[in-house]
Amino acid sequence: MRMYDLIEKKKLGQELSTEEIYHIIDGYTKGEIPDYQISALLMAIYFNGMNVRERYDLTMAMRDSGDILDLSSIDGVKIDKHSTGGVGDKVTLVLGPIIASIGVPVAKMSGRGLGHTGGTIDKLEAFPGFNAELADEQFIKQVNSIKIAVTGQSKNLAPADKKLYALRDVTATVDEISLITGSIMSKKLAAGTDAIVLDVTVGDGAFMKNKESALELAKSMVDIGKRANKKIAAVLTNMDEPLGFAVGNDLEVIEAIEALNGNGPEDLMTVVYELGSQMIVFSGIETDKTKAKELMKEAIASGKAFDKFVEFIDAQGGDSSFAKDTKKFKPASHIVPVNAETDGYVHAIKAEAIGLASMSLGGGRETFDDVIDMAVGIVLNKKVGDEIKKGEPICYIHANDQAKIAHAEEMIRNATVISPEKCNHMDLIIDIVE
Amino acid sequence: MRMYDLIEKKKLGQELSTEEIYHIIDGYTKGEIPDYQISALLMAIYFNGMNVRERYDLTMAMRDSGDILDLSSIDGVKIDKHSTGGVGDKVTLVLGPIIASIGVPVAKMSGRGLGHTGGTIDKLEAFPGFNAELADEQFIKQVNSIKIAVTGQSKNLAPADKKLYALRDVTATVDEISLITGSIMSKKLAAGTDAIVLDVTVGDGAFMKNKESALELAKSMVDIGKRANKKIAAVLTNMDEPLGFAVGNDLEVIEAIEALNGNGPEDLMTVVYELGSQMIVFSGIETDKTKAKELMKEAIASGKAFDKFVEFIDAQGGDSSFAKDTKKFKPASHIVPVNAETDGYVHAIKAEAIGLASMSLGGGRETFDDVIDMAVGIVLNKKVGDEIKKGEPICYIHANDQAKIAHAEEMIRNATVISPEKCNHMDLIIDIVE
Repeated sequence: MRMYDLIEKKKLGQELSTEEIYHIIDGYTKGEIPDYQISALLMAIYFNGMNVRERYDLTMAMRDSGDILDLSSIDGVKIDKHSTGGVGDKVTLVLGPIIASIGVPVAKMSGRGLGHTGGTIDKLEAFPGFNAELADEQFIKQVNSIKIAVTGQSKNLAPADKKLYALRDVTATVDEISLITGSIMSKKLAAGTDAIVLDVTVGDGAFMKNKESALELAKSMVDIGKRANKKIAAVLTNMDEPLGFAVGNDLEVIEAIEALNGNGPEDLMTVVYELGSQMIVFSGIETDKTKAKELMKEAIASGKAFDKFVEFIDAQGGDSSFAKDTKKFKPASHIVPVNAETDGYVHAIKAEAIGLASMSLGGGRETFDDVIDMAVGIVLNKKVGDEIKKGEPICYIHANDQAKIAHAEEMIRNATVISPEKCNHMDLIIDIVE
Repeated sequence: MRMYDLIEKKKLGQELSTEEIYHIIDGYTKGEIPDYQISALLMAIYFNGMNVRERYDLTMAMRDSGDILDLSSIDGVKIDKHSTGGVGDKVTLVLGPIIASIGVPVAKMSGRGLGHTGGTIDKLEAFPGFNAELADEQFIKQVNSIKIAVTGQSKNLAPADKKLYALRDVTATVDEISLITGSIMSKKLAAGTDAIVLDVTVGDGAFMKNKESALELAKSMVDIGKRANKKIAAVLTNMDEPLGFAVGNDLEVIEAIEALNGNGPEDLMTVVYELGSQMIVFSGIETDKTKAKELMKEAIASGKAFDKFVEFIDAQGGDSSFAKDTKKFKPASHIVPVNAETDGYVHAIKAEAIGLASMSLGGGRETFDDVIDMAVGIVLNKKVGDEIKKGEPICYIHANDQAKIAHAEEMIRNATVISPEKCNHMDLIIDIVE
């Protein structure tokens, strides 16, 4: 089998066989096929796509390129939750403890933030001492004992994806549906859970900018998951404005703790309940999603969810006193309002720009080597649809470096649209693919 | 300027600016842009093409990546002739001496053979002592003194093309019209002549398999040549069957000498006269192509053309006694006929397969490191359109290794179609683009 012929085949719009796809992924992972042939193939795939069978084979070949976690020693239906990324997305921090407290085993691999989107692992490290690198046995043991564990991605999970993603990232071949499907689903399948709930974000701050492309991706991933005999569903959620009010690591953790104590922002809770009820249904604990949502609300109201969060932070070595008293998080040295210059209604607070503004304050990474300033970020005072008066804060900038405030403010002003016409709040749940 | 953005631009079907194209070619030639980004770009170009302005910039950027020959010290209009490659293509060997004997300066860079097509330099080396690596000054001096010199391509002529071609060759991005145009024309423009006549071969044994694609390439190259202020024309010639009767190095040289002595095969001479008359017109020696063809015929009949050939071989250190007595070429040890198994008319002798059969006997190279057996090859006894009787030879295999004969014969039989219906000889001149 010559790589040249496989590139030619895809270039001509022909279907690659299962054997051919495994040959490519295997050869590339082992370093036997050079980058320059793979990048030509990736571009041919960008133009000619892959059908569902090819996508499945691609996903499985990538999954098989490394270790596959064996979670069979965890009792019950193991469920993973994955988001395609967003701004202010602290869903896992809220959702995980709630459903774990109901008895759903949460065995979650999470990543770190890059660019304008944050990562769950970074946020959990807000708790001094928190260990996000659990060994497999420790991870499994913890899920069995307290129903929840969150760990960074193991080094040898879908190594083909690491290599391919790095190449796609420098050859303008990231935005192709088969390749995105393969990348996300290979890691999810290697993570070894029985069920997967996908949060496919849509809009300005998301990877998928419109409903059509997000729906296509959601269907593609759900299809691959089903072929791999997983319980799977995808929820399309709005990411035109940041989720909740807080953007930035400590600020989002504080908001998540508020949410576990019953004071969560409406948009955040809508997403949490939708994803969580789906996970509860997959677990078999409840068959009706509405009832599952009631269970979640009870878990919050009774304090079970918050207690589970504390237990979880403790189990991974974190200082949970910060959860009990969020004043222990050291605030940024400057907290500066960005005030409205006119009366009206908020029509847009563009999520990507808010994420980038937070990053510019030091709250995010441009490259994986950057160190995050945990305290900085932005806390919205208004959401799309809210009325606002001239002089009233749109949001507050939390900064540790005064020199960075003016630029962040400019970015926020450019990202915000206030006009006299009334405007609705955003619908959070755009579609569900099962 | 980020290479990522330029790939993205071409991927989206946008036009690359002159500056951007120079940045790419310059950066790649210097090794500052990696192969994997260029191969992604090449594949994007395969799908989205380049417009004429981009092609021109590509060609000029590639030309400017190395040396440009200065032929201004050669008197008269300097003319180059280039073929896109064929089987049995000994045109340069016949054409060069004819028009040089008429007074047209022939300053020709030639290549070596690869795959199923042969190369002029290999054939000239049939003459013991022939030196195909002339220094620039020597090359120019010889054209001034005897009007003809042929040399191998200088090492630093369009180095960008060498790198790009090697990459295209392993990433299935050879067959794209802008890239082919850039590759051929950058070298032609760097070779520094005033006029260029292109022989664009069409058919089974050619790179362009059909008239439409050949015409598109011819127009593209002529267009770029004119933009670069060159006199330029392209002749589309048939390459469905081999040109002439002989395929193989010594065998083709002997046929070329026969042709210079007035005994050339009709198809070969048709191509020689068409290309040569165009070159004579470009030189200004004659304005009418029909009259130019008469001049060529006179040059053969008078012996001037053959004498020029001898002078040329002598000038480059070759033993011209082989030209005067072709029996001095050592024949292959086995000369075996391939006989027809049925009466009928020859409908096809597929050029590519004949070229590959000759290669399999040792007459061509699979890689540039292979050593050619000069004596071996195939001599046709019939051409498409000829009547043939059962038992009559279709051709003769000239082999030095008996073990290779059976396979070559099988290839030849598979490449030959004999059927009862009458059939025309092939039209050699398919189109002319000026």
